[in-house]
Amino acid sequence: MNSGEIALLALDLVGTFAFAINGAMTAIKYARVDIVGVLSLGMITALGGGFIRDILIDDLPPTTFQDWRYLLTAAVGSLIAFFVGSRLEKLSKSINALDAVGLSLFAVTGTLKGLAFGVGPVQAVILGVITAAGGGTIRDVLIQRIPAVLHTELYAIPAALAGILTVAIVRGGLPEIPWVVIAALICFVIRMVGIQFDLHAPKPKHVE
Amino acid sequence: MNSGEIALLALDLVGTFAFAINGAMTAIKYARVDIVGVLSLGMITALGGGFIRDILIDDLPPTTFQDWRYLLTAAVGSLIAFFVGSRLEKLSKSINALDAVGLSLFAVTGTLKGLAFGVGPVQAVILGVITAAGGGTIRDVLIQRIPAVLHTELYAIPAALAGILTVAIVRGGLPEIPWVVIAALICFVIRMVGIQFDLHAPKPKHVE
Amino acid sequence: MNSGEIALLALDLVGTFAFAINGAMTAIKYARVDIVGVLSLGMITALGGGFIRDILIDDLPPTTFQDWRYLLTAAVGSLIAFFVGSRLEKLSKSINALDAVGLSLFAVTGTLKGLAFGVGPVQAVILGVITAAGGGTIRDVLIQRIPAVLHTELYAIPAALAGILTVAIVRGGLPEIPWVVIAALICFVIRMVGIQFDLHAPKPKHVE
Repeated sequence: MNSGEIALLALDLVGTFAFAINGAMTAIKYARVDIVGVLSLGMITALGGGFIRDILIDDLPPTTFQDWRYLLTAAVGSLIAFFVGSRLEKLSKSINALDAVGLSLFAVTGTLKGLAFGVGPVQAVILGVITAAGGGTIRDVLIQRIPAVLHTELYAIPAALAGILTVAIVRGGLPEIPWVVIAALICFVIRMVGIQFDLHAPKPKHVE
Repeated sequence: MNSGEIALLALDLVGTFAFAINGAMTAIKYARVDIVGVLSLGMITALGGGFIRDILIDDLPPTTFQDWRYLLTAAVGSLIAFFVGSRLEKLSKSINALDAVGLSLFAVTGTLKGLAFGVGPVQAVILGVITAAGGGTIRDVLIQRIPAVLHTELYAIPAALAGILTVAIVRGGLPEIPWVVIAALICFVIRMVGIQFDLHAPKPKHVE
Repeated sequence: MNSGEIALLALDLVGTFAFAINGAMTAIKYARVDIVGVLSLGMITALGGGFIRDILIDDLPPTTFQDWRYLLTAAVGSLIAFFVGSRLEKLSKSINALDAVGLSLFAVTGTLKGLAFGVGPVQAVILGVITAAGGGTIRDVLIQRIPAVLHTELYAIPAALAGILTVAIVRGGLPEIPWVVIAALICFVIRMVGIQFDLHAPKPKHVE
C-alpha cells in the first residue's frame, strides 16, 4: 500500500467506527434490543451500505465482510455503545459529527469504487449515496422506523454532491488526493450546517 | 435490436414509468417523505424487483441499474409524482391501470429472463412474480406498511399465472411475440377485474 | 452422494420444513395475510437465510433456490400451516422444538458452507448465524415486527456457539460426522433450555 491508500483506509475505518457507534446508539435509544441486537444493528449500520454497493457491482464477498479490520472496528464501536451508551449520550454532538465524517467518507469511497468497477457516472454517484446511507436505512427498517434519509434533514443531498464532485475529479484527471478529501469536506460542512440550522429537503404537497 | 426486442424494451420502459409514478404516489400518500424519499421510493418501486431477480440469477450489476434508460425513466416518473402529485390523484384509476400494465409486463419479462438464464420452470415463475411485486414490497417495508401483495387484492396470483403461461409458451415452442403479450394481457385483465370487483385471495382461519 | 451427505441433506430439509411451518404460523398469528402472504412468508422464513449467505459468498443462484427439493419442502410446510394452522397451534411446543432443530442445523450447515467457500473463521460463524436467523428476520420485517432475534430470548447466541464449535471441528481435523451433529445438539439444548426457563440476553441500560 502506498501512503494514499493507507490514508483512505484509515479514513474508511474512522467512518466505520463512527457509523457503528451511532447505529448502535440509535438502536439502544429507539428499540428495546438486547446485546445481540445492539451488536447486529451497529455492525449493519457500519457495513450494510458497502454490502449493498458490493452486491450491485458484483464484488463478492463484500470487501468489508472479508477484511477483518472492518468487522473488528464495527464490532468494537457497537460494543462501546452497548457498555457505555448512557454516557455517550452526553457526547451526542460529537457523535453527530463523527457520523457526518462517515457519511462524507463513504460517499466518496463508494463513488470511487463504483468508478473503479466501470459503472457510469450517475450510477457511481448512486453507489456513493447507497454506501453512505444504506446501512442506516437497513437499521431503521429493522427497528421499525421510517428511514431518516427518506423524510428528514439533509443527508442524501450532501452525499450525492460529494459523489458528483468525486466523479468530476476523477473524470477531470485531478489528483485524487487531496481533491476527494476536499469533496468529502464539502459534504461534511453541508451536513453539519444542516444539523445546526435544522435544514430539510423540500416535501411534496400532501395528498389524501 | 430487432423489432421484437424494441417492442419488449418499450413495454418494459412503460412498466417502469408506471411503477415509478405509482410508487412515488404511494410514498407521498402514506408517509411524510421529502424529495429524496419520493425519488428513492419511486425508483425502488420501479427497479427493485428487477434488482432482486438479477441478484438471484447472478446477472450483476443489474441490467436496469446499468442501463441509463431505466434509471432516467424511473427518475422522471418519480419527479412527476413529486411535482404534480396532487393533480395525479384525480387520475388514480389511470394510474392503477398503468400499474397493472407494469405488473403484467414485469411478470412476463422476469420469467423470460429467468428461463434465458437457465433456471427451472418453477423458479422462472417465482422470478417473474419477484420482478413484478418485489419493488413495491421494498417500498412498503421502507414506509412501514405490510406489503400489499401479502394480504390484499389479487396481485401475485395474476402475475404467477402470466409466468406459468410464459413458461408454457417458451417450452411449447410458440413464437414469443405475440404469445407472451397475450399472457401479459390475461394478467392485466384479471388484475383489473380484481380491482373492479374488489376480489381478494383466501385468508387462513385466524389463530390466537 | 455418500451416506454423510445424504444425512446432511435430510437434516437440512427437516430444518427447512420446520422453519416453513413456524414462519407461516407466525405470519398467520401476527398479520392478516392471505394465502399469498402465508406461502411467501413461510418460504422466506425457510429459505431467506440461505439466500443472504449465498449472496454474500457469491454462490448464485442460491442453492436452495435452484434445488427443487428445498422449494417444495418449504412450500408444503407453508401450505400445511395455511390449511391446518388452527390445529397446529396446539402443537406449538413441538413446533418450537422443530424450529430449534432448524436453527441448530442451519447454523452448522451455514458455517460449513462458509468455510468451504474459503471465508475466514469469524466470517463463517457470522454466515452460520445469518443462515439460521436471516429468514425469520426478513419475515418479521415484512409483517412489521422488530425481529425477535434482536431483542428477545436466546436465539443468535446458541447459533453462534454452534458455528464456533463447527469451525473448531473443521480446523481441528475432527471427522465432521458425528462431531458437527454434536455441535448442533448443543445449540438445540441451549435453545430449548432458554425457552423452558425464559432466558434472555443482557440488555443495555436504556437511554432517553
